[in-house]
Amino acid sequence: MFDKLNKLNFETAEAHCDGPCGVYDPAQARIEAESVLQLTKKILDLKRPEGDDAKAHAAYQNTLTRFIAIKEERAEMAKHHLLVLWTDYFKPQHLEKYPDLHETFWNAAKACSSCKQEVSLEHAQELMDAIKKVHEMFWGSKDKDVAWYTAS
Amino acid sequence: MFDKLNKLNFETAEAHCDGPCGVYDPAQARIEAESVLQLTKKILDLKRPEGDDAKAHAAYQNTLTRFIAIKEERAEMAKHHLLVLWTDYFKPQHLEKYPDLHETFWNAAKACSSCKQEVSLEHAQELMDAIKKVHEMFWGSKDKDVAWYTAS
Amino acid sequence: MFDKLNKLNFETAEAHCDGPCGVYDPAQARIEAESVLQLTKKILDLKRPEGDDAKAHAAYQNTLTRFIAIKEERAEMAKHHLLVLWTDYFKPQHLEKYPDLHETFWNAAKACSSCKQEVSLEHAQELMDAIKKVHEMFWGSKDKDVAWYTAS
Amino acid sequence: MFDKLNKLNFETAEAHCDGPCGVYDPAQARIEAESVLQLTKKILDLKRPEGDDAKAHAAYQNTLTRFIAIKEERAEMAKHHLLVLWTDYFKPQHLEKYPDLHETFWNAAKACSSCKQEVSLEHAQELMDAIKKVHEMFWGSKDKDVAWYTAS
Amino acid sequence: MFDKLNKLNFETAEAHCDGPCGVYDPAQARIEAESVLQLTKKILDLKRPEGDDAKAHAAYQNTLTRFIAIKEERAEMAKHHLLVLWTDYFKPQHLEKYPDLHETFWNAAKACSSCKQEVSLEHAQELMDAIKKVHEMFWGSKDKDVAWYTAS
Amino acid sequence: MFDKLNKLNFETAEAHCDGPCGVYDPAQARIEAESVLQLTKKILDLKRPEGDDAKAHAAYQNTLTRFIAIKEERAEMAKHHLLVLWTDYFKPQHLEKYPDLHETFWNAAKACSSCKQEVSLEHAQELMDAIKKVHEMFWGSKDKDVAWYTAS
Repeated sequence: MFDKLNKLNFETAEAHCDGPCGVYDPAQARIEAESVLQLTKKILDLKRPEGDDAKAHAAYQNTLTRFIAIKEERAEMAKHHLLVLWTDYFKPQHLEKYPDLHETFWNAAKACSSCKQEVSLEHAQELMDAIKKVHEMFWGSKDKDVAWYTAS
Repeated sequence: MFDKLNKLNFETAEAHCDGPCGVYDPAQARIEAESVLQLTKKILDLKRPEGDDAKAHAAYQNTLTRFIAIKEERAEMAKHHLLVLWTDYFKPQHLEKYPDLHETFWNAAKACSSCKQEVSLEHAQELMDAIKKVHEMFWGSKDKDVAWYTAS
Repeated sequence: MFDKLNKLNFETAEAHCDGPCGVYDPAQARIEAESVLQLTKKILDLKRPEGDDAKAHAAYQNTLTRFIAIKEERAEMAKHHLLVLWTDYFKPQHLEKYPDLHETFWNAAKACSSCKQEVSLEHAQELMDAIKKVHEMFWGSKDKDVAWYTAS
Repeated sequence: MFDKLNKLNFETAEAHCDGPCGVYDPAQARIEAESVLQLTKKILDLKRPEGDDAKAHAAYQNTLTRFIAIKEERAEMAKHHLLVLWTDYFKPQHLEKYPDLHETFWNAAKACSSCKQEVSLEHAQELMDAIKKVHEMFWGSKDKDVAWYTAS
Repeated sequence: MFDKLNKLNFETAEAHCDGPCGVYDPAQARIEAESVLQLTKKILDLKRPEGDDAKAHAAYQNTLTRFIAIKEERAEMAKHHLLVLWTDYFKPQHLEKYPDLHETFWNAAKACSSCKQEVSLEHAQELMDAIKKVHEMFWGSKDKDVAWYTAS
Repeated sequence: MFDKLNKLNFETAEAHCDGPCGVYDPAQARIEAESVLQLTKKILDLKRPEGDDAKAHAAYQNTLTRFIAIKEERAEMAKHHLLVLWTDYFKPQHLEKYPDLHETFWNAAKACSSCKQEVSLEHAQELMDAIKKVHEMFWGSKDKDVAWYTAS
C-alpha cells in the first residue's frame, strides 16, 4: 500500500516530505561522528599508569571509562540522526535517484555499532566517510550546495 | 568495505552476529505497536463534552493530550526496536534470503511515523502487519518456530 | 481512601484496569532479564589480555565497560517493566488471589539491583525465575494460557 | 531465597543497605509532587478564550498542553523517586518496623498514576500526604529528625 | 578558587579546554532553533475544523498537540546545546574578550523558555539571532571563519 | 530587547517568575552533589584485587565502572538542576541583589564538569559549597529561612 500512496504523492512530495517541521541537517550526525573519532584517538593515546599508586589508577580508570561511555553515547546519537534522515526525510522518489540509498544507510548504521564495539580508527573514519556521502545525497536531493566542514 | 568484511565473516556470522548480548525479540516492537493501535481506537472513541463545564473540558483535554503523547512515544519505541533489528541483528547473508529486507523495514519505520502524524486505524494495522512479517523473517532466520500472539 | 475506591470499582475493574491502553506483557521484562543473564556470562568469560599491548588492553576495557554498562541499563529496564505491572496493572482484587504479590515484586526488583551491583549468575537466574513467576500470575489473572519461551 | 539471605544480613544491614552511594532523600519525591499539585491547580484555573481569535486559541492550547505534559512528567518522576526508596533503601528489617510498608508505597505509586489520568486536586493532595508519610518512615528508620517543609 | 586555577591555566587553556573530546559546534543549537521557528509558524497557521466532525477534530488535536510537544522538546535541546557551550567550552580568558558572555547566554537560554511558554514568532526569531551571535563568538574565539547558514 | 522587557516586568516579576509551576528547590541539586561526593570517596577507597582471580577482577571492575558511571550521571543532574535555577528562576532584578549571580552559577556548573573529569574530593567539596551558596541566594531572594541539611 505504500507504493500506491507514494505514487499519488509523488508530485507534491517536496511540499509534504518535510513534515512535521522540515528541518533536517546531516551536520547533526557529522558532529557526533567527529566526537566518536576524537574519543577513539584519545582512548588509544591514553597511557596506563605504571606502579601501584591507587590515586593514579583511579584517575586513569575514570578517564578511560568516561571516554568509552561517551563514545558509546555519541555513536548512538550519530545512528539516531542518520536513521531519522533515512526513515523520515528520504522518500521513494529519492530512491529512484539514489538506488544505493538503503545500503548507504545500513552500512552507516552498522559503522556506528562497530565504533561502539571496537576502539578502531578505521571504523571511525568509515563512519565519517559514510556521513560525508549522506551529506552529498541530502543536499543533492535539495539542489542546494552546502560546504562540508568539520568542527575539530 | 563492508562487502569484503561480510564475505569473510559469512561462515562465522551466526556465532558473531549476536554481539553484544544476542538477545533479540520482535515481541518488543509488537507490544509497542499494540499500544499504538489501542490508543488510536481510544482517541477516535473519545467523546467531546457538550456545554461549558470547565472541569469536564479539563478532564477531556487531559485524556486526549495523554493519549496522543503516549501514542507518539509508543510509536517511537516501536520504530526504535525495529531499527535495532535492522541495523544490529540482520546481516548481509540474511539479505540474500530476504531480498525485500530493506523495503520491509523502511515501510515499517515509515508506518511508525504515519501512526504519529495521523489518528489512523489503517496505519496502526499496517504497522501490526509489518511487525508480523518481521516476526516471521526473524524467527525464520533462526529456524525457530515461535507462535505469534498479541497481549490485547 | 484507596480501600473505598477499590471496593466500588471491584466489579468493573476488569474493564477499567487497563487504562490508559490496556497493553501489558511480562515479555518486556523477560527480554531485558535475558540480556542481563547473557551479559553476566560474557563478563565472566572475558579473558584479560596478557602482556602490555596497549591496543589489546583498550579493546578489553572497551568490551568490559560496555558489557557492564549494558547490563546496568537492561537491569534497570527489567525493573521498570516489572514496576509498571505492579503499580498499574495489578489491582487490590488481584491481591486477594495472590497474597504474595507485594513480596514477589519487591524481591524481583531487588534482584534487578543485585544483578547491577554484582556479576552473579545466581542473581541473574533468580531474576529470570522471578519473572517466570510474574508471567504466570499475570496470565493467570487474565485466565489466558500463554507459553513461556526465551529468545536466547 | 531472599528470606534466608535477609536473615543472615540482618545485623549488618545498616552498613550495607546504603550501596551504591547511600544518599536517599524523600525530598526528591516531595518536590515533584508539589509540581503536580501546582500544575493541577493551574489547569483547573485556566480560562478558555471566548470567540474565535486564532492566536488566543493557540496560546491557550499551548499553555494547557504544556501543563498536562509537565504534570505527567513530574508525576512519573515522583513515582520513580518513591520506587527507588521502596526497592533500594527499605530492607526486610524495616518491614518488621513498618508492616504497612508495601501498601504505603503501592498506594503512593497508584496516586501518581491517578494524578496523571485525572485533573484532580484530591489525588494530588493524596500524593502529598502519602509522601509526608514516607518522609516520616524514612527519617524514622534512621532515627533522624528532619523537618517537613514545602517549597511552594 | 576558580580564579586562582584559571590564572594558572591561562596559557595552556587552549590545549586543555577541549576535554573530553573537543568537538563543539553551535550548529547543534541552530538546527534545534530552526525547528522551534518552523513549528511556531505551523501552529499559528493551523486551521481549527469547523463543525462537529469527530474525526476532523481528532486529527486537528493530534497535529496541534504534536507540534506543541515537539516545539517544547526542540527548545529544550537548543537550551541544552547552548549551556554546554557556556559551561564547558567557554573559559575565563574568553570572558575577557567577550565581556557580555554571561548575558548573551542567559538571554539565549531565557529565549528558549519563552519559546516554550508562548507561541511567538518574535521569541523564536530572538532565539535565532542569539544563536547567530553565539556562532560568531564561538568561531571568533577559534579565529576560524565558518559561514552561517540555515537548513530550512 | 530583554532589557526593555525586564524593566516593564520588574514590579510583577514575583508573580510571573514562577511559571510554569513555581516549584523550585535547591535541594534537588544538593542531593545529587552529595551522591557525587560519596561516590568519589568510594572510588578512592576501592581496593584493587591482588593476584589473578578472574571473578574478583570482574567484581572489582563492575563496582568501579558503576561508581564512575553513577558519579557522571549524578554530576550531570546536579548541573541540570543548577541551570534550571539560573535560567528559569533567577530574573534580572535578582541580579541587582546578587551581582555575582552569573559567576556563581558558572563556577558551580564548571565544578560539576570537574567532578566528572576527575576523582577529586576537592572538586566534590567545591560543588557542595557552591550549592550551599545557591541555597542561601535562593531562599534569601524569597525572604524565607530554610535550614541547610544533608542526607548523608
